Amino acid sequence: MPQFDETDLTEAVVKSFDETPDPRMKLLMRELVRSLHDYVRRTGLTFEEWEKAIDFLTRTGQKSTPSRQEFILLSDVLGVSMLVDAVNHRDRAGATQTTVLGPFYVGEHKQMPHGADISEGLDGEPMYVQARITDLDGAPIAQALVDVWHADDDGFYDSQKPGYAERGPSLRARFATDADGRIAFRTILPCSYPIPIDGPVGDLILAARRHPMRPAHVHFLISAPGFEPLVTHVFIEGDKYLETDIVFGVKEELISNVELRNDAVMPDGREASGPWHWMTYEFRLKPGQGAAPRPMMAGTV
Amino acid sequence: MPQFDETDLTEAVVKSFDETPDPRMKLLMRELVRSLHDYVRRTGLTFEEWEKAIDFLTRTGQKSTPSRQEFILLSDVLGVSMLVDAVNHRDRAGATQTTVLGPFYVGEHKQMPHGADISEGLDGEPMYVQARITDLDGAPIAQALVDVWHADDDGFYDSQKPGYAERGPSLRARFATDADGRIAFRTILPCSYPIPIDGPVGDLILAARRHPMRPAHVHFLISAPGFEPLVTHVFIEGDKYLETDIVFGVKEELISNVELRNDAVMPDGREASGPWHWMTYEFRLKPGQGAAPRPMMAGTV
Repeated sequence: MPQFDETDLTEAVVKSFDETPDPRMKLLMRELVRSLHDYVRRTGLTFEEWEKAIDFLTRTGQKSTPSRQEFILLSDVLGVSMLVDAVNHRDRAGATQTTVLGPFYVGEHKQMPHGADISEGLDGEPMYVQARITDLDGAPIAQALVDVWHADDDGFYDSQKPGYAERGPSLRARFATDADGRIAFRTILPCSYPIPIDGPVGDLILAARRHPMRPAHVHFLISAPGFEPLVTHVFIEGDKYLETDIVFGVKEELISNVELRNDAVMPDGREASGPWHWMTYEFRLKPGQGAAPRPMMAGTV
Repeated sequence: MPQFDETDLTEAVVKSFDETPDPRMKLLMRELVRSLHDYVRRTGLTFEEWEKAIDFLTRTGQKSTPSRQEFILLSDVLGVSMLVDAVNHRDRAGATQTTVLGPFYVGEHKQMPHGADISEGLDGEPMYVQARITDLDGAPIAQALVDVWHADDDGFYDSQKPGYAERGPSLRARFATDADGRIAFRTILPCSYPIPIDGPVGDLILAARRHPMRPAHVHFLISAPGFEPLVTHVFIEGDKYLETDIVFGVKEELISNVELRNDAVMPDGREASGPWHWMTYEFRLKPGQGAAPRPMMAGTV
């Protein structure tokens, strides 16, 4: 007959998953029970705190819509998203570091020619981006497909703004590397921006006196046959939020020294209208297989 | 500059809560981060599993309404609700054991006279309930208030059925103990019943090959000045789900040997219409203070 003390109870719940046919689900549920119970025991969680947690989780689910994913946001600000990224990329010696895909990737972009301007006339400081894609030995990878996307001068992605469907994409495109593994494009300098704070997750981070900011960055998703797809960001050196990114996405190696230049001519030979920023980065892909990630719903980034 | 490995990342997230003004919130958030991260690391959670978890939690929030609380149901089937009850009742030597309040408590019931029939004419096997309320030494507590509520012969509470607001309560009432600490009432025998399985939590337990059943029981909430309010159930011996209650609420001491009687006269001197069940229980209250719990939204029980 059951007579559970605090420890027996945990073992009884773990055992209730014994007949789970899927062995991975069984392991995940049993470990989940152990983690949750250990948390309740060691914090001595009160009824009132438990009720607040139930209410918080409910509101987090109810805040989510097809274009807003509050649980991903929660995962992001608790560093869980980056940790999932980390445990799935445990062996990448010599390859470029990964970081989260984020919700503003909308699927494969339209391919644009070498040197194209992806800013679609948006206001902002001009930036010229040059990247090179190589294998672990530094040999160029030709015909690699490189999707790029980033926020505008106000911190918004095109997909966050009204009229996106009619207006079409801006600050996002796909490029293919040349024989030397290079791509280049023109755009505007992205800026740091806050994650959405009008929901339960915003309430949480503000109650914890955390700021809601992400440092400025450009997303890259790079695929080439025979290599693992690479999902990463390049951050802009000097941003004041690099050390305290609300989603913990920054890695030192991913910070680019974006130079401010006054040269009258840009690297592609075209005239500059004034000062411009020059971002350069070399990506090293890891040999292997793997499908490029699918777009996620909007949570953050 | 940040450069997080799997362990550094956890410490960085823990540290992000350093400025939380409320010390209890700070502790709860820091420990939550440690628990979540430890879970992700030791299971090696994949991206696909993480996405499934995000989707599950989102649907759990969205399934909840003012009369249906799917996150409480999740807490119940993972044994978390009973564990929160346990860690908040660590020192109860000699007092009656507690169990969860559940969602079908709707607030203080209408008081009824000693021996009243609370079945409101519902079909079912007659049951006569006698209970006595004492202190830890067995001395009777007079004028203790005893709220009782239970499911009907089909496993439903009155508040789950259409027309509840107009029809008024059934199978729920409040009694006050007499000078000898006793209450008595007539009702029908409750039966075991399933928790709601038409949501994400139902999908989860069915995928784990767990049954959704709770063993038959009567809820008691007992208050008296100078004693801690007691929230508990009395279960009916012989129920086939006593060992595997989906919410882990059973404790051996809370099982009553409900006798089937053929006496022509019930203990209150009134004639019986046929065989009847006799539930008896003695509750021992712990000296102390405390407010009676507030009703929760509908999740289970």
